Amino acid sequence: MAVYTDVAADELAAFLTGYDVGELLSYKGIAEGVENSNFLLHTSKGSYILTLYEKRVAADDLPYFLSLMAHLAARGVHCPQPERNARGEVYGHLAGRPAAIINFLEGMWPRRPTAAHCAGVGDALARMHLAGRDFPLARRNPLSVEGWRPLLERAAPRADEVQPGLRDFLSRELAFLERNWPQHLPTGVIHADLFPDNVFFLGDEVSGLIDFPFACNDILAYDVAICLNAWCFEPDHAFNVTKARALLNAYEKQRPLAEAERAALPLLARGAALRFLLTRLVDFLDVPPGALVKPKDPLEYVRKLRFHQAVASVGDYGLAPSGSMA
Amino acid sequence: MAVYTDVAADELAAFLTGYDVGELLSYKGIAEGVENSNFLLHTSKGSYILTLYEKRVAADDLPYFLSLMAHLAARGVHCPQPERNARGEVYGHLAGRPAAIINFLEGMWPRRPTAAHCAGVGDALARMHLAGRDFPLARRNPLSVEGWRPLLERAAPRADEVQPGLRDFLSRELAFLERNWPQHLPTGVIHADLFPDNVFFLGDEVSGLIDFPFACNDILAYDVAICLNAWCFEPDHAFNVTKARALLNAYEKQRPLAEAERAALPLLARGAALRFLLTRLVDFLDVPPGALVKPKDPLEYVRKLRFHQAVASVGDYGLAPSGSMA
Repeated sequence: MAVYTDVAADELAAFLTGYDVGELLSYKGIAEGVENSNFLLHTSKGSYILTLYEKRVAADDLPYFLSLMAHLAARGVHCPQPERNARGEVYGHLAGRPAAIINFLEGMWPRRPTAAHCAGVGDALARMHLAGRDFPLARRNPLSVEGWRPLLERAAPRADEVQPGLRDFLSRELAFLERNWPQHLPTGVIHADLFPDNVFFLGDEVSGLIDFPFACNDILAYDVAICLNAWCFEPDHAFNVTKARALLNAYEKQRPLAEAERAALPLLARGAALRFLLTRLVDFLDVPPGALVKPKDPLEYVRKLRFHQAVASVGDYGLAPSGSMA
Repeated sequence: MAVYTDVAADELAAFLTGYDVGELLSYKGIAEGVENSNFLLHTSKGSYILTLYEKRVAADDLPYFLSLMAHLAARGVHCPQPERNARGEVYGHLAGRPAAIINFLEGMWPRRPTAAHCAGVGDALARMHLAGRDFPLARRNPLSVEGWRPLLERAAPRADEVQPGLRDFLSRELAFLERNWPQHLPTGVIHADLFPDNVFFLGDEVSGLIDFPFACNDILAYDVAICLNAWCFEPDHAFNVTKARALLNAYEKQRPLAEAERAALPLLARGAALRFLLTRLVDFLDVPPGALVKPKDPLEYVRKLRFHQAVASVGDYGLAPSGSMA
C-alpha cells in the first residue's frame, strides 16, 4: 500500500505521447499493490492505471505477465490489458523504472467475501486456466516447492521468536512436502496470488482479475489451493466449507478436476499455506523495530496449515466424491 | 500520504444511497493528504473524492471548511464542492468517522513549479480572498502567532538534536514575532496551506484549489506570505525572485495590496516560515526511530526563515514600490 516513486506531470505527459490514450487530465497515486507504484490516470479517452515496477519485480518477467494479460483479455477473461506504445511494446521506462499503462477496470474487491464471491472467483479462475492453455511463453514459479527451503533458511534462526516451536514445525512440514510434492498433475498458467484484493466485483459478478506479477507456469490445482487459503477462512480463522464448496463447484463447472488433482488438493493446500507463511514470516522478521508499516501476521497461516494437515479428503473441502453429481 | 481507514464496498454503497451520486463502480484509496483517508470514487454519474476525517481534524471545524468550499465554488473559485446528502448535510459518518463526498477536479499539481504556475496561484489566491469576503462563518487560526509558543515548548528540549543552536534561534525569532506581529491588517478567509500539492493545473491554468482543512479567518497577506514560502524557493533553497514577482503581480491584479500589507510582507513571511518550521520540527521529533515514513525536513524552513530575516523591503520579493506600475 504505497507509492514509492512520484512522477512529475510533464514527465508523465511526455511518456504518454508514445501511447494512444488521449490527453492527460489527472493522476493520483493509489494505495494498491505492495510491490509497485500505481497511479490512476484520467485522460480525455478514459481511465488507465500506470504502474512503475520497483526493484522486486524483475524486468525480465515483465514481457511474460504483460503479454499474458493481453492474451487472457483477448480470450474473454476480464483482466486489464496493457496498452502498446508507438513501438508496439507493452512497457516502456519512466522515472528510471519499467512502466506500463493498462486499462482501468471498474469494480470493487470484497473486504468480506461471501459464498457468492467465492463462486465467482472459482469460475473466473477456471476460465483463466482454460484461456491460458495456448499462451506461448513460460515462466518457472520461483515460489513453488523448490523455492521454500531458501525462505525457511532465512527465517529459521528467529522463527521461534514469533512462536515457540515454529522452527521445528516448519522444518518438518517442508521436509514432508518436498518428499511428497506431486510431479504429474496438469500444469499451465496460474495466477499464484488470487487473493480477494486482486478480484474485482460489480455486485456478485467478477468484473476483473488484476495484479499478475506472480503469474507463472505451475500445477493448475495449486492455484485452486491458494484460493482455498485466501478466500475460505473466516476472520476468526475458521474454515468455511460452504465457501469452499461454492468455489470448487464453480471451478469444476468450467474445468472439472481430475481424480489425481482432487486427491492432491489437501497436500497442495498445505503447500500453499506454507508458501504464504514463509514469505510473511521473512517479511515480518525483516521489518525494523518501531516501523509504522505493520507486516501481515504469519501466524494466520500456521492456523490454516494446521487445518489442512488435518484434512482427510476433498470431502472436507465440501467437494462431492468423484462420480457423484457436482 | 496514506489511507488510515479502509472501507468495505457494501458499507460505502450504503453510505452513498444518501447522496445523488449514482451507482458505485469503483473506489481506490489515494496517496494524497497527510491528515485524512481519501478515496477516488467512480460512479455511474462521474468521479468523486470521499474523505474520512481522522482525529486530527476536529469535527467541529467540518461545517466551516465544507461550507466554505461550497461558498467559494458558487462564486466561481475552482474548488471542490461537497455533495449534500438527503438531509441537506455536507458531511455524514462512515466507518466511525466524519465523511464527506466532494466532486472530483481534473488537473495535476506541479512537482516543479514554474513562474507561470506562480502567477496562476497568485491570481487564484486573490480571487479566493475576494470570494470569501461575504462568507458568514468564522474560525480562528489555531496556527497563527498565538499558536506557535506551545509548539516551540514541545520541540525546544530536543531542538538542538536537529541542529546545534536551533533552540535559541527559534526562541529569539518567536519573541521578535510576538512583539511585532501586525494587528491592523485586512483579514478574511485564508487557505493557510496553499502548497503546490494543493493547486491543480491543466497546462498553465489553475483548474482547482483543494484541501481546505486549515482554512480560517486571518490576515489576508499572511496567506500571500505562506505562498511565497511554498512556491518561490528552488530545490537548492535559493529564493527565485522571478517566481515571487509573478505570484505577487498576479495577486495584485485581482486584489492590490495596501501599503501597510506590503510593508508587513517580510515580517509575515518570517512568521509563515516559523509556523511550518515548528510543525515540521514537532512531527520530526515525534517520529519513532526506525519508522518507514520519513517526516519532512524542518531545516528547509530554517534556511527560508534566514532569507526573510535578511529581506529589507518588498523590493526583495520582486514587487515594484507602491505607486509605480505593477
